[in-house]
Order: sequence, then C-alpha cells, then structure tokens
Amino acid sequence: MEKIKVGVVGATGYAGSEICRMILGHPQAELKAISSVSFEGMELSKVYPAYYQLCDMVCGTEDEAVEKSDVIFAALPHGLSQELAARCDREGKTFIDMGADFRLQSEDIYKEWYGGEYTDKALHEKAVYGLPEFFREEIKGKKLIANPGCYTTAVPMALVPALKNGLIETAGIIADCKSGVTGAGRKPVQSNHYPELNESFTAYKVANHRHTPEIEQTLSRISGEAMKITFVPHLLPINRGILATCYARLKPGVTEEQIWDAYRTQYEEEFFVRLLPKGQAANVKNVHYTNFCDVSLFTDPRTGTFVAISAIDNMGKGAAGQAVQNMNLSFGLEETMGLKLVPPAF
Amino acid sequence: MEKIKVGVVGATGYAGSEICRMILGHPQAELKAISSVSFEGMELSKVYPAYYQLCDMVCGTEDEAVEKSDVIFAALPHGLSQELAARCDREGKTFIDMGADFRLQSEDIYKEWYGGEYTDKALHEKAVYGLPEFFREEIKGKKLIANPGCYTTAVPMALVPALKNGLIETAGIIADCKSGVTGAGRKPVQSNHYPELNESFTAYKVANHRHTPEIEQTLSRISGEAMKITFVPHLLPINRGILATCYARLKPGVTEEQIWDAYRTQYEEEFFVRLLPKGQAANVKNVHYTNFCDVSLFTDPRTGTFVAISAIDNMGKGAAGQAVQNMNLSFGLEETMGLKLVPPAF
Amino acid sequence: MEKIKVGVVGATGYAGSEICRMILGHPQAELKAISSVSFEGMELSKVYPAYYQLCDMVCGTEDEAVEKSDVIFAALPHGLSQELAARCDREGKTFIDMGADFRLQSEDIYKEWYGGEYTDKALHEKAVYGLPEFFREEIKGKKLIANPGCYTTAVPMALVPALKNGLIETAGIIADCKSGVTGAGRKPVQSNHYPELNESFTAYKVANHRHTPEIEQTLSRISGEAMKITFVPHLLPINRGILATCYARLKPGVTEEQIWDAYRTQYEEEFFVRLLPKGQAANVKNVHYTNFCDVSLFTDPRTGTFVAISAIDNMGKGAAGQAVQNMNLSFGLEETMGLKLVPPAF
Amino acid sequence: MEKIKVGVVGATGYAGSEICRMILGHPQAELKAISSVSFEGMELSKVYPAYYQLCDMVCGTEDEAVEKSDVIFAALPHGLSQELAARCDREGKTFIDMGADFRLQSEDIYKEWYGGEYTDKALHEKAVYGLPEFFREEIKGKKLIANPGCYTTAVPMALVPALKNGLIETAGIIADCKSGVTGAGRKPVQSNHYPELNESFTAYKVANHRHTPEIEQTLSRISGEAMKITFVPHLLPINRGILATCYARLKPGVTEEQIWDAYRTQYEEEFFVRLLPKGQAANVKNVHYTNFCDVSLFTDPRTGTFVAISAIDNMGKGAAGQAVQNMNLSFGLEETMGLKLVPPAF
Repeated sequence: MEKIKVGVVGATGYAGSEICRMILGHPQAELKAISSVSFEGMELSKVYPAYYQLCDMVCGTEDEAVEKSDVIFAALPHGLSQELAARCDREGKTFIDMGADFRLQSEDIYKEWYGGEYTDKALHEKAVYGLPEFFREEIKGKKLIANPGCYTTAVPMALVPALKNGLIETAGIIADCKSGVTGAGRKPVQSNHYPELNESFTAYKVANHRHTPEIEQTLSRISGEAMKITFVPHLLPINRGILATCYARLKPGVTEEQIWDAYRTQYEEEFFVRLLPKGQAANVKNVHYTNFCDVSLFTDPRTGTFVAISAIDNMGKGAAGQAVQNMNLSFGLEETMGLKLVPPAF
Repeated sequence: MEKIKVGVVGATGYAGSEICRMILGHPQAELKAISSVSFEGMELSKVYPAYYQLCDMVCGTEDEAVEKSDVIFAALPHGLSQELAARCDREGKTFIDMGADFRLQSEDIYKEWYGGEYTDKALHEKAVYGLPEFFREEIKGKKLIANPGCYTTAVPMALVPALKNGLIETAGIIADCKSGVTGAGRKPVQSNHYPELNESFTAYKVANHRHTPEIEQTLSRISGEAMKITFVPHLLPINRGILATCYARLKPGVTEEQIWDAYRTQYEEEFFVRLLPKGQAANVKNVHYTNFCDVSLFTDPRTGTFVAISAIDNMGKGAAGQAVQNMNLSFGLEETMGLKLVPPAF
Repeated sequence: MEKIKVGVVGATGYAGSEICRMILGHPQAELKAISSVSFEGMELSKVYPAYYQLCDMVCGTEDEAVEKSDVIFAALPHGLSQELAARCDREGKTFIDMGADFRLQSEDIYKEWYGGEYTDKALHEKAVYGLPEFFREEIKGKKLIANPGCYTTAVPMALVPALKNGLIETAGIIADCKSGVTGAGRKPVQSNHYPELNESFTAYKVANHRHTPEIEQTLSRISGEAMKITFVPHLLPINRGILATCYARLKPGVTEEQIWDAYRTQYEEEFFVRLLPKGQAANVKNVHYTNFCDVSLFTDPRTGTFVAISAIDNMGKGAAGQAVQNMNLSFGLEETMGLKLVPPAF
Repeated sequence: MEKIKVGVVGATGYAGSEICRMILGHPQAELKAISSVSFEGMELSKVYPAYYQLCDMVCGTEDEAVEKSDVIFAALPHGLSQELAARCDREGKTFIDMGADFRLQSEDIYKEWYGGEYTDKALHEKAVYGLPEFFREEIKGKKLIANPGCYTTAVPMALVPALKNGLIETAGIIADCKSGVTGAGRKPVQSNHYPELNESFTAYKVANHRHTPEIEQTLSRISGEAMKITFVPHLLPINRGILATCYARLKPGVTEEQIWDAYRTQYEEEFFVRLLPKGQAANVKNVHYTNFCDVSLFTDPRTGTFVAISAIDNMGKGAAGQAVQNMNLSFGLEETMGLKLVPPAF
C-alpha cells in the first residue's frame, strides 16, 4: 500500500512540529511538505535542532503543503482554518484541524467565545468532532475532522462513563485542570519566561477559558442534557501533561461498584485509555510522549462526591497523537498505527 | 528587653530548620538550643550546608533544648508532642507544636484520623489553635499553641470571609489543593526521588488526607455549623508553596460586590493577607520565603460558583512563619516582628 | 527470522527498565524474562506505572531470565556480573554487561578503583568494549560485551577524532562533565531528594570518579599513548543527559580546518553521531530519549585551546540505547534497528 | 543618622528589582525613587506581584531618580551609563553602575568586546572596580563604582589566593562556568522560553563571552602579569546561581597544604566568603538569595591540576548584593549591613 502523503501547515509551532515527529515514526504515512509563515525557507531542524539530520525538510508555503498531500494537518491560530478547509474539501483532501474553528456546533457559542463567524455553514455541517473514544463511528472515513483541544479531551475522558450511565448529577460539576506549559505555545511571553514560571503555580482564565463551551458540548451530547460546568485551568511548571481533577455529586443510591462497572465497560476495549487500579492516582508523567489517557476513580462517601482524575500528554492525546489517531480512522488504517509507544518512566 | 530564648526540637527536619533560620533573623529572639534524634552531636550546618558559619550550633538532646529555652518549637512526628508539652506546661515554658497532637478539639476525630489518644485531657483544654487571623485574641499570651498545618491554613484563608458572612452554601465545598514537595518532609522516599517527581504531577490521598478534619474544624467554628468538605491534595514538582483552589456554591442572590466587601473587611488590617486586585490570580511564587497569604476571588455567574484561591509558602505561613507569628503573640511582641520579609520575585 | 529472545537482569533499575522499554519497540527482539532481587514476584508496571498494560511482565529470578533468553542484559551493582557472565559463556548466550566488571582491561586498575578482583581471567580476555563508533569490528558477533558507562561514552566522542589525528596535546586534557540525575540510579538518597536537588548545582567526586580510568583507557587506545586526564563530574537538576565539555591544547600549527576535517571524516558515516554546524553548541535536550550523540567544536585562538562538547542521553547512548546497538552488532542485525527515534523537541 | 536616599535606574529588570528588594531590608538606606523606560508610570508591584503592598512605588523618570537620591544604582544596557555617571559626578552623588561601562580600564579592550567608546576619559579614571574582597581600600568613600559582572566575581573568587601566592601557572587556566537563567535578563526570548530551557543544558558564547576580558583584568592585576584564560559559560535550567569550576596547573613542588594556607589567609576575615571544609564541593543552592561566595578546593595529584570551585548567587554577590556591599563601603557603613541573610536550605 502506498503511504499516505502528509502535509503540515503551521509546522513550526509545538503541535505542528509534534505531528511531524509522529508522522516520521508512522509506518503508513510520509511527511511530504510542511509550511510556516514565520520560518518559510528555513529547515525545520534549524527551528528544532533536536530534528537535525532527521527532519531537515524546508518550510514552504501553505499552497505547497496542500498540493503535495493527501491529508493536511493545520495548526493555525483560530479563524484561519476555514478557508483552507474549504479548499481541501473542494480538492477531496482530508483536513484535520488542530484549532477551534470546526469544534463547536453552535455558531452562536463560537461567536461568543471566539468572536468570529462561520463563513461556510455547509462546510461546518460536514465537520466531525475527532474524539474517537466517544464518536469513533462518525469519524471513520470522514475528511473534515475537528481535532479536540487538550482540556476538552481530558475532562470528558474523566466524566463520560459516569454521565452516560446517569450516575452523577449533571449540575455542579467542577473541572480543576492543570496543564504543562507547552499548551501555551511556542511564542515567548513574559509569563512563560523561565525565571518567572519556574517554581511558580497559578490558575488562569478562571471560569473563563474558551475550552469551557467545547467541554460542555461533549458532555451535553453524552448526557442528552444541556450542561454547564465550572472549569478552572492552572499552569504547571512542567513541559507536558494535563491532569484533570473532576468533581461531581453522585446521584442518590449510586454505589462505588456501579461507577467502576461503568468505566470498565466503557474503556475495556480502548487501547489508549488505561483505567488505573483502585487506589492509584493518574499522573501526567505516565503518559508522557504518548497517546494514552490514564483514568483514576475515587468516591468520597463523607460528602457524596465523585472524583475522577484523568491524565494525558497535552501534545499527545491532547493534540498530535489524537490527530494521528483521527488520520488513521479517516483512512481506514488500524487506529493505533504509529501510536503504540511506551511512555518513558523517567 | 532581654531576647526570648528559643529551643527547637526536631531542628533538622524541614520545618525545624526553617524555624531556626527565621529565629536567626528575629530581633527579639535568640536561638539557644536545638535537638535532633537522628543527628545528635552534629552541627546543623553539616546537615544543611547553607547554614555554614551562620548556624553551626550542635544538635543536642530534647532535654537541653527545653532547659535552655523560654519557648520550645517542636517539629516531631505526631504522637510525640504530648509528653513534651506537659513538661513545658509544668515548667511554665511556651510550647508551640508544629505537629497535629493539639490541633483537633475532638479526641474522637483525632483517634479516627491519627489513631492515638489524648493522654492528658486537661492539657488539651489549655491548647489554643494558632491561626492568628481568625483566633488572634485566644492566642495572645497563651503558652500551649497548636500551630496549624499547611493545607489547614490555606483553605480557611480562602473561605472564611464568605462563610462568616453567610454568602456561600456550607455543603458541597471542594478544596482542590496543590503543594510543593517540602511539605512531604526531608526523608528520601521513592515518590519524591528527583527523577520520579520531576516533570510529574498527581493527586494523592484523594478525599482521604488527615488535614480534612482540621480544615472542617476551623470552617465549622467560623460558620457555626458542622461542615464536611471534599479535600483533594496534589503534589507539585516545586519546592515550596500551596495553592488552594476552593469551590463553593453562592447562596441565592449573593452579589459579587458582597463577596468582595466581606473579604476587604476581614483582611484590610491583616498585614500577612494580601487580597489581590480583581482579575489577578494568586501564585505560590509571590509568597515564597515569607509569611504572606495571597487571596484571589472569582465568581462564575454561568453556574453560580464561587472560586476562592489562596497561596501560601507551606514552610512560611504554612509552618515556620506562622509559628514565629504565634510566638510573637504569645510573648506580647509586635505580631509581624522578624517576619516583614519581601518575597523574591524570581 | 525468529526474534531474539531477551532477558534483563536487574530490570527494575533505571538502566534495566529502559532496556525493557527499548526492546518493546525493537522489531527483531522480544522481551522474554526480567529479574529483580528487590521486586521479585511483582509486575514491572507496578514499579513503573508508565508501563501499565504495556509491560506487565512479572519479575522473576536471574535463573529464569537466563534460561529463557538468547541475550542477557545485566544491570547489576559492580562485582556481581562475573559469575553470571561465566554462566552465559558456558551456555553460549550473549551477555551484555551494563556494569563496570568487564570494562577495564587492566585488573590492577580495576582493583585500584573498584576494589575487586578478576575471578576468571580467561573470561575477561573474551570481553569486548562496546563503544561501536570506535571499536565496531571487534564487537560484531561477540558474545561478551562490556557496555561503556555514560561519561565514558560522552568524553571519547568529543575527543577521539582530534586525538587520533594528533591534533591536540595528550597531556593536560580536562573533561568537565554535567549529568542528569538518572545517572545516580533509582535508590532514593538524601542528595537526590527532590527539594534538595531542585534548583541546586554542584560538582561531585572531583578528579576522583571511577569513570576516569575507563575514559583514559579509551583515549590511550586511540592515541597509542598512556594518557591521564582531569575529569570533574557535576550533577544537573534534570532527569536525563550528559554534556561533556572537554578542553585540550591544540598542537602548534594546527588549524581549525584540520580539526573540522578530522571530525567530519570520523563521523560522516555514523548514524548516531551528529556533528553540529559550526557555531551551534550541543544541548542535552536535543538527544533526549535517543541513542544520538551530538558533537560541537570550538577553538579559542586567544589561548590555543580546543573545546569539544558532546551531548548524549545518559540512559540512551550512555546506557540502554548503546546496549541495544551492541546487541544488534552481536547478532548481525542492522546496527540502528529499533533505535531510529526522533528526539522530542520539548 | 539619616538614612541614605536610594534611587534605582532600570528598576524593573532583574538586577534593578533585586536591588530594590535589598534596600527595603536595609536599616540605613531608604528607597526614594525608581525609574524604568518600559514601565514608566506603573507600580513596581504591577511588574512584580511578589512586591504587592510592600513596594508599590511608581516607576518615574531617570531624572527623578537622580534628583531624589544620594546614591544611584544603574541597571542599564551597556553604553547608557556614561552620561548618567557624569551627571552624578557633577552633582556629587554616588553612582554604582551594574553594567559594563566602567569595568574595563582599557578603552581598547572595551571597544573590542563592546564596540563603544569612552566619551569622558577623566570620568573613567575616577571609577573604581567594586570587588571588595580584593580592592576594598580603593572602594571606600568613592563615588563612582563599577559593580562587577556575575562570572567576573565568581572566577576571581576561586583563583585569586592561588594566583596571588604564585602557586599556579598563569597560562592555561580554564574557567568552566554554569549560570542560572536570571543572568540572561527579564526579556522573554526563545531560548529561555520555559518549554525550551526546561530539562536542557548547553554551553553558549564558547570562549567568546564579554566577561572574558574583565576576568582577565582582575587576574592580571592580582598576578602582575598579562593573563589570558579560556572561559566557557553554560546555561543551567535553574533561576539563580553561578558555579565556576576553574582549572589551573599547579606550579612544580606546590603542596596541597600551601594551597589551603593561601586560601585560609586570604579569606579568614571575609564575612561573605565561606571556604568550605576539605572534600565538600560548593553548591549554588547554599548561597541562594544572599551575598555569600562559597569556595571549595581540590587537587588532582595524578595530573598536577588544581580545581577551585566557587558558587555565588548571580543576583546576590553577582549583582545586587555586591552593589549594596559597595554602597556600604562608599558611605562608610558596616560592610555587611543589610546583607547578613541566612540562605534558605531548600
């Protein structure tokens, strides 16, 4: 079988460069072209010396990336993907969007949180939301895939089985999330300047982060109810990983065993989801550089609270890894192809 | 005025050594004796080379520490303070306990969470709980002071003004806390071995940590109601600092302005509490090496949730700093003496 | 072709567990048995939760590991490998020793630095030193391979081409090396307890480290002269990586171009050695989780000093990666098999 | 006695803000005015929230800072101090320059390494080099003080006693230095963006750093010979601290005892220099947030090499602390005033 030709638009950002790295290790895909506005004409390995002699491909234009490829991964600032997606649609190419432009079904909500418009509504109808563990069948064979955000992957992973089985209240859910710094992107900013972030820890965009409506959309689809949650992200002084500590009230009479059954049933066939043994808490370290999501469950009988904690690598399952998983689904490959990596233990 | 003679029992642990350091900078107190079971006969500066030529005092016995001192700070494993406290009581010396032995008013709760007994109930009656911002008048002049734990300082700091003024529901409160590693002590253990903690992040003792009943005791005293909370601690790969992100439901009709008024009123005279300007989130970095507690407030009108975030240095306001503050109160000194330190910005 | 059966003795240490991880990703090798004295009967994924569901193999005895395998990697404290090597020799199995027992040709030097004896001198004669870039032909097909230490890989990588071509003085060489913490092993010790190592930096075993004679042995073999160097290791507060900054006096009249020619010639065919473009300094980050060695060259015309800087991952090219490279050579596989990994850029 | 009025020009940079913090803790000095080009009109505590309610002073103009003060600390990009120094000279104010403009006695060398000119040569004649441990008498009472750089403090501290006593060769000295990131300043740049610096380690400006001639100037003044050294700086992923590992050849016949005698004699009266016990290596951690310099000594009898290792806090003895020490000398105060701080052990 001929290898899938891959183009990465926005290849010098963190998500883009990680997609390149993953494609280099994928047995059925081949990196054909990369583009970058900021670094056009420069070798990717000049931007990331880690890739020296391994990916010395030169950054070209977006046009070139589209022309040479069967699938285009776009890691662009929000608002810029719609035009590119339309072109791919016309040319019959698969488009996997790392940004937010196609994630929200409701244009109103998009406007409220992102400020833009849906210029081509028919195109938005075609887009599928690429969270395979919950929407796998919709994704298979599709050519316009909105790859979820990082928090918006981690939180549903922690809550869906309980919600789907009606074991927790849909109101009052709290998602206290902590992310590594790569989630904030490659551009140097004061707050992520090493001396200021090192040994620091703080919350940001408290109850005000753009991933809120996207998380709510997924949870609402699962529960069949319009849900609102309180979502508070924090910034960890580590490179990679998201830990989502999610709190919900158990419905009256729900037992711990019902909870565990729901999660076991949901996840037993999912290669990338590891339901941890009772008593063991998920740790971002254990999923580093992979597409795994570790899930751990606790109940607080003193207060009737359910605590579900998930861990992902924000650049893996939270971005590039999931994007490759979606590519595999789109092209009918084995879903885990190129992604069966063992996380380093240290 | 003659300087207060200070003895530190358990001086080679993190809390003990930090008390020594703070006393060295205190204008009205003098370090007279230190003790250590593990390092008896060794200079403190052999254990902590940072102190070389600045505190080369030799670790002696507990007896010596008591004999030479007006005030004894005890940083001992729980269960070991009661006898020492009794002796100090007999000899008219001030005893400030860094451990949990005198923190809980209810012996039953102590038994449940710590497993021990109150051997001298009259002595426990004499103990005061050393959280000056809420119980200052009780502490002044007292000679047996239970210094609060780190989480048990941070969480009430975030919640008390709202609770005291009846602005939040007393049920359903969640305290999602994150602590630096020094809180786990000096003893090398696998989980805090550098390669395993570095770049990691996880929860521990989920809804099961011993500080839970102590936090509940303080909140209940303030609210006048028996309260239960869900408390989940996490371990940060940084040395110092606790961030407590606390969630509560706003009572119906409560406005954001009422919240801010309550906190301004409570804290405007408190030197060590800095209520941050609206929109700015507390960060552990900004209180490093000091006795400050930064408090930041948010409301989520979408869900009616109140989010209060406090930051302390777990070794400062969460341990040694607060202990010195309590010593000042006990001896009638200016409460801030020796503690007016400016945190380093980086 | 049937896969090589692999056994790892001492699988729960850092080097051992990393070998397991690499073998899991090797297309022609299969992990058949692992052993551990400390964790016998326990799943490897209990020790390293990162491996959960990916390597849940149970630690057995050393005997089992040998019986089930064609090749045995031994990550044992020094002194313990000799007996095991003898058994493998008798049974015709390949033995790759991660420890120091077979690295030094001179028993006297071994005694001086390690304190032990060569119990079976004939066996030591059979051992080859597994630094493929310099001794490849000797290693091919051999069954008793002494895998070099981490510093002892990094320093020769920086110096050999200059030495081999007689471009630098053999006296007065200084190797100022800095290593990540995993090099110190998995056992928790005070100096590597997180709060004490974090934000610290120091030298250790100054001019007194056991890798000194091993480095000298390699340099002397290359130069044909008995050489002595000054070697000072430092401990970096990072997990992985060694940077070796090596200083030597240029011989009179030697030009920068001669230096570059020597390195280009030596390394142009070496997949795992990346000679960096002029002006770019090697960084441990760029070789993380791989078997690469980056080499960068500088001259100081003001003083006639040559500065060669190499970077390896101490767990990759400095331990497990090189061991797999040696296995490939021993079994006649492509030398890079299972090791063509792209280092993550962040 | 009235307090010294202090102005800080460039107060929002790392060195400037640290001077402010130190002055806030100084019993005989008072911060009267601060200036900043980038943050004029903004409170210092907006730039550094750690200072909230402790230093809310508003950044004004350079003019204001000069007018209100007896002593002006200038933390400016090089080239900008000369005019300001001239003004202070005219107005009889003390000027302590944190930059390089007055450090080098030779204008030719300044031109070669910095590219500028000495616009007022008479003024340069007045400047003294503020390394008190070696040039104390020159500094006392002077009003134009060039505060040394960080590396240029650390390296002489390690080498001067040996040089001064003729115990080491003056040729062939190597200074392999490692610095925390704050030395690179507050401006966010790609290389110090958290995800890229974290877990990294590299050399920079190899044998080419501007501190080279300044170190050579000090060593040459001490030895009485024109000296050249090889200086290679590295960047540590920690906030603060410089470790200087310095290598020199012992002169024939020199004993270890002679070395130790020279250092004991030189440093026994120096409060800020701690000559460590034999066998203990200096660690940047042990001088954090202070003006101390720890010095440790080793000899390698196998090669005749002397290894002297010093540790300072690059923001303390390497910048702000030494500047306050110089202020004390200039104004006839006790040299250690405001600087007797005990470094935190963790």
